[in-house]
Amino acid sequence: MGVVTPQKAAFDAPLRLRSGATLPGFELAYETYGTLNATRSNAVLVCHALNASHHVAGAYADQPDEVGWWDNLVGPGKPLDTERFFVIGVNNLGGCHGSTGPMSINPATGRPWGGDFPVVTVEDWVDSQALLADRLGVECFAAVMGGSLGAMQALHWALAYPTRIRHALVIASTPRLSAQNIAFNEVARQAITTDPDFHGGHYYDRGVVPMRGLRIARMIGHITYLSDEAMMTKFGRLLRRGVPGFDFDIDFEVESYLRYQGDKFSSYFDANTYLRITKALDYFDPAAEFGGDLSAALARAQAAFLVVSFKSDWRFAPARSREIVRALLDNRRILSYVELDAPGGHDAFLMDDPRYHGALRAYFDNIER
Amino acid sequence: MGVVTPQKAAFDAPLRLRSGATLPGFELAYETYGTLNATRSNAVLVCHALNASHHVAGAYADQPDEVGWWDNLVGPGKPLDTERFFVIGVNNLGGCHGSTGPMSINPATGRPWGGDFPVVTVEDWVDSQALLADRLGVECFAAVMGGSLGAMQALHWALAYPTRIRHALVIASTPRLSAQNIAFNEVARQAITTDPDFHGGHYYDRGVVPMRGLRIARMIGHITYLSDEAMMTKFGRLLRRGVPGFDFDIDFEVESYLRYQGDKFSSYFDANTYLRITKALDYFDPAAEFGGDLSAALARAQAAFLVVSFKSDWRFAPARSREIVRALLDNRRILSYVELDAPGGHDAFLMDDPRYHGALRAYFDNIER
Repeated sequence: MGVVTPQKAAFDAPLRLRSGATLPGFELAYETYGTLNATRSNAVLVCHALNASHHVAGAYADQPDEVGWWDNLVGPGKPLDTERFFVIGVNNLGGCHGSTGPMSINPATGRPWGGDFPVVTVEDWVDSQALLADRLGVECFAAVMGGSLGAMQALHWALAYPTRIRHALVIASTPRLSAQNIAFNEVARQAITTDPDFHGGHYYDRGVVPMRGLRIARMIGHITYLSDEAMMTKFGRLLRRGVPGFDFDIDFEVESYLRYQGDKFSSYFDANTYLRITKALDYFDPAAEFGGDLSAALARAQAAFLVVSFKSDWRFAPARSREIVRALLDNRRILSYVELDAPGGHDAFLMDDPRYHGALRAYFDNIER
Repeated sequence: MGVVTPQKAAFDAPLRLRSGATLPGFELAYETYGTLNATRSNAVLVCHALNASHHVAGAYADQPDEVGWWDNLVGPGKPLDTERFFVIGVNNLGGCHGSTGPMSINPATGRPWGGDFPVVTVEDWVDSQALLADRLGVECFAAVMGGSLGAMQALHWALAYPTRIRHALVIASTPRLSAQNIAFNEVARQAITTDPDFHGGHYYDRGVVPMRGLRIARMIGHITYLSDEAMMTKFGRLLRRGVPGFDFDIDFEVESYLRYQGDKFSSYFDANTYLRITKALDYFDPAAEFGGDLSAALARAQAAFLVVSFKSDWRFAPARSREIVRALLDNRRILSYVELDAPGGHDAFLMDDPRYHGALRAYFDNIER
């Protein structure tokens, strides 16, 4: 993709959120790749999941090693080909990578929002993305795509703006979190909010960060991103020191991996954002207002769908994706479903398995521009 | 079972541990139910898992509501019938229910062991249990049984003392933890050891307890004890306040459950014990010294085995139990294997499913005394 430059769009009009709160104007950080064609028919929105951002592909001039999180998929000649499509990545509201979020200044107080930043939802994100699309002159997306929480946004796009999206790519997703999914999120949240450095979310001006809690939250997350099998293949029971230490230093390789991931994440990610993103996951449930009837909920959708799941994904297992597929079939929507026997667990959606990328490439090749 | 009374046995001889450390004498808290017969052939040792103790059945005179953790199984007329068997429950070394552990006084310093208490293993526990058996006049157990970590002890009994155990009941177990199993334990440990109140395990004389960490550890544990399905049946996506709160109070019922379990556990269990018990789980791997060959490792066993697994148990799934079964078959051991389609997840071993208890009752009925 080469060198890319992040941009910002400011919106002055207040945004009414699903919680009932109103955000008094906001900024969105975003990036674009490729060129919007004359008929404005080749735009693809890539929605991010938990810890990612608007930086989908390429690298910044001053940070050549920090390539975008889906760089293996998005770029010239790649499955989502930026020589054909105009691709947009956007950091979600409440994020910590440039869009308005808990670290931003609350105009009412002149200090960071911190714990007072409202809880935002998938619906709020999609609404703000639609405003960005207006700004960029995109009336109708060729496609909106995402994996995991990003896929929830793609799905909601098809429901909230049925005439503004022609294809929804819903990868490694679920129509709603299970009690176990929520439970993992809740433990992560409890680790953060009970960290003595959390201060009810108002830690910025105290010069501390609830790093311990965020570190634990990330470690829990990583367990759910990999499958038991993938972890066994990757780490086995390998002892870092060759023999058991009979102490609480690192014994097994998997411990080293988790500590490293936790340390890294807690050094750059914002705990208030993490809390809000897990809430957005928990709340997403398009069928709820239809008495749990997903088919009724998806009746509004007009887009064609590609649904992809991975057999080793126990977080959002194929059975969850099949619920979406079944509801779309009930509505006679145009639909492709790919269930891949990839070993990567939930994280498989970020990996470049040739069957997976082949399926995405074939799908995009068939999208009219 | 009625009223029971805990007892203590003191051992003056130093105990050499697998870590290389030596414990200078120790005490074991234990309980017995029923009567040892004249030929001393009816003794059954019940080994406990993570958070349980020697209090297997019955209740104490001054705590009539605190019934033993396996009271549904052990008692007069129950599957493990105390009118026929002499049953022993023992709190493991390193525990926090009366046996010598981190809260005990270190004779070398006159202060609690705390973080200096050695890491103990399944092998150490079995060795100390054998000393207790000597003290109680039990040369050979009719059976040693346990679920989960307790089952690892039953399995190791058959390997370390093959002539002192006639039957091993290995329930909801595994021949060794997977990388994912270890990962969950490691996050729990990290939550405890990074709690500012942990102080390297020397928190007793500071008047604090690493409650936050222990609470998170327990919450993580509970997720692995229940199946996704069992959680969904039990809690679903039920909102405690009827509507989303858009805050970080309790939204979903499962959050309430986890917080309650975490609060309760952290108010009575010792963090240093928790750390050591998870290490004992991680280290257990009888096949390790046989190059990973479990069949070779189990060749020493002479006992007959009952192996039980539960389909909804994703922590120690039936496939793990089948590894033990296969290795026993390779050695032409006498073996019964029961795989139950019970919904309770890993915790199913504590529940009184009639098929499960029926199988245990039938097995015990066939044990000669």
